[in-house]
This record gives sequence, structure tokens and C-alpha cells, in this order.
Amino acid sequence: MPRAVRERQMMDAAVQTFGQRGYRAASMDEIAELAGVSKPLVYLYLNSKEELFTACIRREASALVEAVRAGVEPGEPADRQLWAGLRAFFTHAAENPDGWAVLHSQARTHGEPFAAEVAVMREEIVSFVTYLIGAAAREADCDSELADREVAGLAHALVGAAESLAAWGNGTPGVSAKETAATLMNFAWAGLENLMSGQRWAPSPRA
Amino acid sequence: MPRAVRERQMMDAAVQTFGQRGYRAASMDEIAELAGVSKPLVYLYLNSKEELFTACIRREASALVEAVRAGVEPGEPADRQLWAGLRAFFTHAAENPDGWAVLHSQARTHGEPFAAEVAVMREEIVSFVTYLIGAAAREADCDSELADREVAGLAHALVGAAESLAAWGNGTPGVSAKETAATLMNFAWAGLENLMSGQRWAPSPRA
Repeated sequence: MPRAVRERQMMDAAVQTFGQRGYRAASMDEIAELAGVSKPLVYLYLNSKEELFTACIRREASALVEAVRAGVEPGEPADRQLWAGLRAFFTHAAENPDGWAVLHSQARTHGEPFAAEVAVMREEIVSFVTYLIGAAAREADCDSELADREVAGLAHALVGAAESLAAWGNGTPGVSAKETAATLMNFAWAGLENLMSGQRWAPSPRA
Repeated sequence: MPRAVRERQMMDAAVQTFGQRGYRAASMDEIAELAGVSKPLVYLYLNSKEELFTACIRREASALVEAVRAGVEPGEPADRQLWAGLRAFFTHAAENPDGWAVLHSQARTHGEPFAAEVAVMREEIVSFVTYLIGAAAREADCDSELADREVAGLAHALVGAAESLAAWGNGTPGVSAKETAATLMNFAWAGLENLMSGQRWAPSPRA
């Protein structure tokens, strides 16, 4: 069997085990057995459980960022791009629940250096969303309305909302990726659109 | 000095140290020195660093939930209640950056049993927001439009967005709690309001 294929099998088994059993509970024995290889071979490939977990985080983070970027079609109107990006994100999280659990639940809850790996990926996604919202603002010709800082704030809000919804969707039977994406788009887009046309929320009169 | 006052000083010192230095790096020596008490006294009060950290999480979680609940005025229109709750949340997070760091960054990134403590608090806040959005939907008389599941999804989106924005706001010089609350309200409310009046987002035509 070619080395690349075997490595992929080990990584698949590792992501599944870390995602389903958690970083602490997962054992190298279990991962080797699931991959159908010997434990020494797993150690030969990556020196330690920590290195194997780090490799899983990197692979899953790249796959997620790649899926979002690939989902967006440049040249489309901004709301379509955002919609396509959200669809791609929720679809990827739903189709790769173990990978998502590695990133969202496991990597962030077991201290450094794992949390830092996920933070880098998150920053990359926030930057991309900041760019998309900024592009939408320019399309709507509202540069003067929406300061750079508010665009950054909105991007953080959208990313946080998407993370939270994906975790809820994966943990709730029968919720589809299309449904979570539509919920977030319904939630966010009308607000963004109003913001860009200069209509801001104001408190209603007191009862 | 009364026991309650001394305990409070120790807890304040512990939250400050855990929030600023992180759970791992924080030492009991440091906490005792900051509190102006001897290290044996800290251990007498709470048996271990782990128990002290758990007590900090519980205190800060209760304070946050209490601040949000106290901020909401029952009987007001739903958007005012949501606005008041968000203002209270962002104000509390901005005024207690160490407490917020303990909950959002430290407790969630150091495994169990700490992450479970924060998860309980988060569920409580999500339930409260679900209730507020449900009340808003009933006010808008749109029961048939907005299924329970979508209300739950929206609550998860709002809470995730708020967490992400609060972390961004605390880490970005010059961003006020009022500003983050307004950004989220602008982002979310118009969307929610349109949803409740039966106006859903639909993709714009392809370019």
C-alpha cells in the first residue's frame, strides 16, 4: 500500500476517534486498530498522540477553510457570495461531524498548543468574512455609513453565530445544513442589508 | 476581618490572576500575595487550585447570568427586552474582563470539569434568549411562520454572535460595550423583525 494512502487511513481513524471519544479518552491502540495498522507504525508516522492530534487539527482546519473558499463564487453579488460561503461552511460541518468536533470542541478545550492552531484558522475565516461584508458595503455604496471597525465587529458576530449554530445543528437530530445556513442568513442578512442602506435599529418606545 | 470579606478578596485575586495569566500559569503563591493573605489560608479556604478555579467559574457565571436577567425589564416590548439584555451582557463583559476571560477563554480551554461548568451557564442563557425570541414571535403574531426549532436555532446564533463580539470588543482598544451591543442589535434585530413579519431572505439573481 502506498505511504500516502496508509497515512490518510491513519489520519481518518485519528479524526474519527478524537472527534467521537475526545482527545483525553482516545488511545493510540484504538486509532491503530481502526486504521488497520500496528501501533508502532502510527508512532513511526507521528511521534506522539500530541503530534497526531496537531496534524488532525491542521488537516481539518485546512479542509474547512478550503471548503468555504471553494464555495464562494467571486463576481457574484455580495449576498450570494455570503450565502454560498455559509452553505459551504454548514455543509462541510454537517458532512464532517468528527472533523468539526475536533476543531470546535476538542482542539479548543485542551489548552495549548491546540487552541492556538484553531485560533489561526478562525482568524483566517474572520478576515475572509470581513472582506465579504466590506465588499457588500461597497456594492451598497455605504462607505461613509459603515466604519471599518463596525465591519470587523459584524464579521466576528457572523462567525460566532455560525460556529454556535453548526454545533447546535450537529447535536440536534434532523437539522440539515441547508436549514442552519438559511436560519443564519435570515437572521443576519436582512439586518446587514438594512445597515448598508443606512437604516439602523433604534429602541422602540417604552411600554 | 470577617471571613466573608477575606473570602471575597481571595476570589477577586483568583479571578484576576486566572483571567490575566491563564489557568496553567497562575500560581497559588501569586493569588495569595495579590489577596494579601498567606498561601496556607488560601488552601484552607479551598483545597486545591482546581477547586479554586471551579469556584471562580461558578461565581463569574452566576454574576453574568444575574446581570443579564437584571438588565431585562419584563413587560417591555420584546426588542427592548432583547436590547436591554444585550446591553447588560456586553456591559458586564466589558466591566469584568478578567471574569469574562475566565469563562470564555480559560474555563473552556482546560478540559473537564471546567468546560462543563461553562456549558451549564451557556445553556441557561440560550434558554433565556429562546424565551425572549419566542415572546417576540408571539408579539408579532407569527407562530405559524417561526417553528420552535427555528427559534432555538436563532437563539444559538445570537448567543454565539454575542460571545464572539464580546471577546473581540475586550481585545480591541476603544470598543465600548454600547458599541458592540448596537452592532449586534443592528445585525440581528432587523433580520429577526423581517423573519417575524414573514419576510425571508432569498438569494438575489446570479450576476
